[in-house]
Amino acid sequence: MNYDIPKLQQRFIRIRENKLFETFVIIVIILSALVIGAKTYQIPEHVLALFWILDQAITLIFLAEIIIRMIAEQSLKSFFRKGWNLFDFTIVVASLIPVEDSQVALLGRLLRIFRVLRLVSIIPELRILLSAFVTAVPRMGYVSLLMFIIFYIYAAIGSMLFHTINPTLWSNISVAMLTLFRVATFEDWTDVMYETMTVFPLSWTFYLSFIFIVAFVFLNMMIGIVLETLQKEHEKFDLIEGTGEAGEVHRIELRTIEMEARLERMEEMLKTLCAGGREK
Amino acid sequence: MNYDIPKLQQRFIRIRENKLFETFVIIVIILSALVIGAKTYQIPEHVLALFWILDQAITLIFLAEIIIRMIAEQSLKSFFRKGWNLFDFTIVVASLIPVEDSQVALLGRLLRIFRVLRLVSIIPELRILLSAFVTAVPRMGYVSLLMFIIFYIYAAIGSMLFHTINPTLWSNISVAMLTLFRVATFEDWTDVMYETMTVFPLSWTFYLSFIFIVAFVFLNMMIGIVLETLQKEHEKFDLIEGTGEAGEVHRIELRTIEMEARLERMEEMLKTLCAGGREK
Amino acid sequence: MNYDIPKLQQRFIRIRENKLFETFVIIVIILSALVIGAKTYQIPEHVLALFWILDQAITLIFLAEIIIRMIAEQSLKSFFRKGWNLFDFTIVVASLIPVEDSQVALLGRLLRIFRVLRLVSIIPELRILLSAFVTAVPRMGYVSLLMFIIFYIYAAIGSMLFHTINPTLWSNISVAMLTLFRVATFEDWTDVMYETMTVFPLSWTFYLSFIFIVAFVFLNMMIGIVLETLQKEHEKFDLIEGTGEAGEVHRIELRTIEMEARLERMEEMLKTLCAGGREK
Amino acid sequence: MNYDIPKLQQRFIRIRENKLFETFVIIVIILSALVIGAKTYQIPEHVLALFWILDQAITLIFLAEIIIRMIAEQSLKSFFRKGWNLFDFTIVVASLIPVEDSQVALLGRLLRIFRVLRLVSIIPELRILLSAFVTAVPRMGYVSLLMFIIFYIYAAIGSMLFHTINPTLWSNISVAMLTLFRVATFEDWTDVMYETMTVFPLSWTFYLSFIFIVAFVFLNMMIGIVLETLQKEHEKFDLIEGTGEAGEVHRIELRTIEMEARLERMEEMLKTLCAGGREK
Repeated sequence: MNYDIPKLQQRFIRIRENKLFETFVIIVIILSALVIGAKTYQIPEHVLALFWILDQAITLIFLAEIIIRMIAEQSLKSFFRKGWNLFDFTIVVASLIPVEDSQVALLGRLLRIFRVLRLVSIIPELRILLSAFVTAVPRMGYVSLLMFIIFYIYAAIGSMLFHTINPTLWSNISVAMLTLFRVATFEDWTDVMYETMTVFPLSWTFYLSFIFIVAFVFLNMMIGIVLETLQKEHEKFDLIEGTGEAGEVHRIELRTIEMEARLERMEEMLKTLCAGGREK
Repeated sequence: MNYDIPKLQQRFIRIRENKLFETFVIIVIILSALVIGAKTYQIPEHVLALFWILDQAITLIFLAEIIIRMIAEQSLKSFFRKGWNLFDFTIVVASLIPVEDSQVALLGRLLRIFRVLRLVSIIPELRILLSAFVTAVPRMGYVSLLMFIIFYIYAAIGSMLFHTINPTLWSNISVAMLTLFRVATFEDWTDVMYETMTVFPLSWTFYLSFIFIVAFVFLNMMIGIVLETLQKEHEKFDLIEGTGEAGEVHRIELRTIEMEARLERMEEMLKTLCAGGREK
Repeated sequence: MNYDIPKLQQRFIRIRENKLFETFVIIVIILSALVIGAKTYQIPEHVLALFWILDQAITLIFLAEIIIRMIAEQSLKSFFRKGWNLFDFTIVVASLIPVEDSQVALLGRLLRIFRVLRLVSIIPELRILLSAFVTAVPRMGYVSLLMFIIFYIYAAIGSMLFHTINPTLWSNISVAMLTLFRVATFEDWTDVMYETMTVFPLSWTFYLSFIFIVAFVFLNMMIGIVLETLQKEHEKFDLIEGTGEAGEVHRIELRTIEMEARLERMEEMLKTLCAGGREK
Repeated sequence: MNYDIPKLQQRFIRIRENKLFETFVIIVIILSALVIGAKTYQIPEHVLALFWILDQAITLIFLAEIIIRMIAEQSLKSFFRKGWNLFDFTIVVASLIPVEDSQVALLGRLLRIFRVLRLVSIIPELRILLSAFVTAVPRMGYVSLLMFIIFYIYAAIGSMLFHTINPTLWSNISVAMLTLFRVATFEDWTDVMYETMTVFPLSWTFYLSFIFIVAFVFLNMMIGIVLETLQKEHEKFDLIEGTGEAGEVHRIELRTIEMEARLERMEEMLKTLCAGGREK
């Protein structure tokens, strides 16, 4: 039996790389998403039964697919090394847990929603997009920290001064930070301001300075991201090949260095010739 | 009679290319737009009668214009191959359907509004603008898909958890997606949040994570478009002629290649000369 | 007496170019702005009397200043040719009209507000900024036209379908355009939508398509302006002097052309030498 | 004893540059921030007592730290010359003032919040970020002035015309400017507009023109900042070393100049050779 495994593995690799198989999985994922969406509507009992069968079928197909991919991989270790595989595995296994008539029914249903995210893991273009987003997060690290410090200081001041005026908005620092986020999105921020202005007539300075600082930091954050993205794009563009203007300029430089060396040699020869002419 | 058609066609081509004819059509389109606008006001009966006559006249002029353009074209096939012609034809023919005293009166009136869009099809600059917009849509394809997946997942979670709290906002997945779009535009989003926070005190994480993700994806989408547009503009600029810095650099490179070849030949000659000098 | 005029003119030119005189005028303009602002507060009768005197004094100073600048100019024609002079003159003359106890008192007071704009006409940096803004308007011409067409079509559809639902928002096309502008700024747009959705459940498509189109056109408009501004800045930068990379590249090209011609001559000479060598 | 001071100073310099010491200070600052935040919650009496002790400890640590840094510095003068040192010193000294049971308790507590800002002064990356923000402010000077003039003029007109309609929003010029800022953030701006439209039906022109002007000036401001930042980044990038395209182009130019001189010399020699050849 040991003998047959490589053959099976080869067949599974062929299945995994089959375009039809991929399309089939994508269709099943979309179907699973539609089932999740449909369940949020008021649906008759017998359709619900149909959905239950469909759900079990999707779970089984997902299980089969992940097993095929696991066997197709050289080893379990190399399978789990890829982040997306781990992600897929977790989602599929989580779906296997029986949730009907149990306390954790809601959690189980919530987990099933994340099956839709498998669309991201299976379509390469979406995977690239998401990776780009994830790698972009740390570049904003220090600006986000600065933003957080600003929110924290303003929230501390706000909850200290205004907590008696409106406890719902300013009772403690976390509630105050939420209120400030609301002010930052301009969501009914004047209602918040007018209320505190009845007690502290100058509290508009608190809100205006906050809006100006946050808008300014945010603007700089955006510019920073744009600049970094631009620079990265440029580098990538120039690295792929020596194509483009930068590549041409580089080749020109190399050529001028060579030409200079050659000219030097030639001048030397000419000098010898001249000297020879004179000597004669 | 067959004999006369080419002559007629030539005359029609001349009409079509006449600047006055174009201006006249533009004025009729604007007039048609004004009539549509005026009808939304409360107007006395006799003015309405005047509008009816005007409307018929405009319909006839549009019909005449489209027939002139059809005959001026080499064949019906080549006429309908152009998307804008098909667009104009559909609008004009749709206006011919009698709508007075009929069930579809509203539909007929709605169709007449799209006559205003003929302004886009007749002014070349607007046509170029609209084409640019249409070609820009697919570039955002995958980002839009990602955005949709995010909305779908959040809507599924939202309608699952909150549908009992406020059925108007969360009863099913499509209503929930509309609610989330509202949250994304910051439109009274705190009212939506405070309501669900009475039952789920931690539901602010749901809204904040959603706002951050959507804002971030949207920002990246915008940057992507800007970068692509910039790159396209650059390429166009460089392609038109070898003008600009890129053109100059390219010409310099060609020239240095030539110079190098020439220098090589010259060095060879010099070597022969030197050798000759020594031999002597 | 005719004799003295040139001397007077010279003195006035000297006054006009005096830094102190300019500073004095700026202070008077700021004072005039402060008086206008102060008048909006509830002020006692005797302070109001003081303001009246101050107002007359400011008017007289402005009059004196404009007369000095008129005489300092070579001719009235060349004075009025400059747009900013005409602007200053209109504001000063309009202030001369007696407005106390007259029907047009409000109009007169409104005209006085525009005196603050004289700050723009007197500070060169602000004048440059404003000119830049004014010249930027036409570049957006066709995009604004397209935006207007979109608003017009949606307003026509909106007022046709919804005018019975809420006459305040949709009674006619101009009111509907204002409502759509409100929707475009996301100002309580869901209230507008939910109201019409009670009659037309699918009317959310109307609002969402409108928001997407307007946002997209607006985004393109912004990118267009940024691109144009960038290009203009670049050209300006390169034109000032042959400095910068573009200037260097240009000089390199000129030099390579010259070098090529020289090399051609040298090769010719070498050929003659070689031929001569062989002949010997 | 005088003898020992340099030794002490050296030890303090070593402490100041110790990575552990820095980390310890950062932890104390974060702890101080957490205490400030925790105090905004309803906390039992005995925890409050704990907080009081913690607060005193933090104050003492901060005092010790600043004294270490003062002694480590060469002189008090050079210590206070650095803006961040002055900032730290002020915050630490302000915390020393006893605030318990006194009239200025609130002020003292407010001052303690600014201790969080010490995080900015101690983390170099945040310090750089903040400096960048501060240096960016003056570049927007004239645009901000123009923006202020626009707000002032509109506020003057608004308070003149509408102060009887709604005194809360338009009673005087400063209240009107706050209302206009609200309109600029699109915060319930239509409520403000509809109210004044009942008296002045054309007052929508006031709001729309204001929104368009402010949006346009703001857009130009943003573009201006982006352009300046881009230019600065470029210059910095090119200056660091002669790396990059600009550096290469510069080196090419220098080389072509040299090559030209050499070619000139060579041509001269060739001419002599040719002449020599003929003479023979």
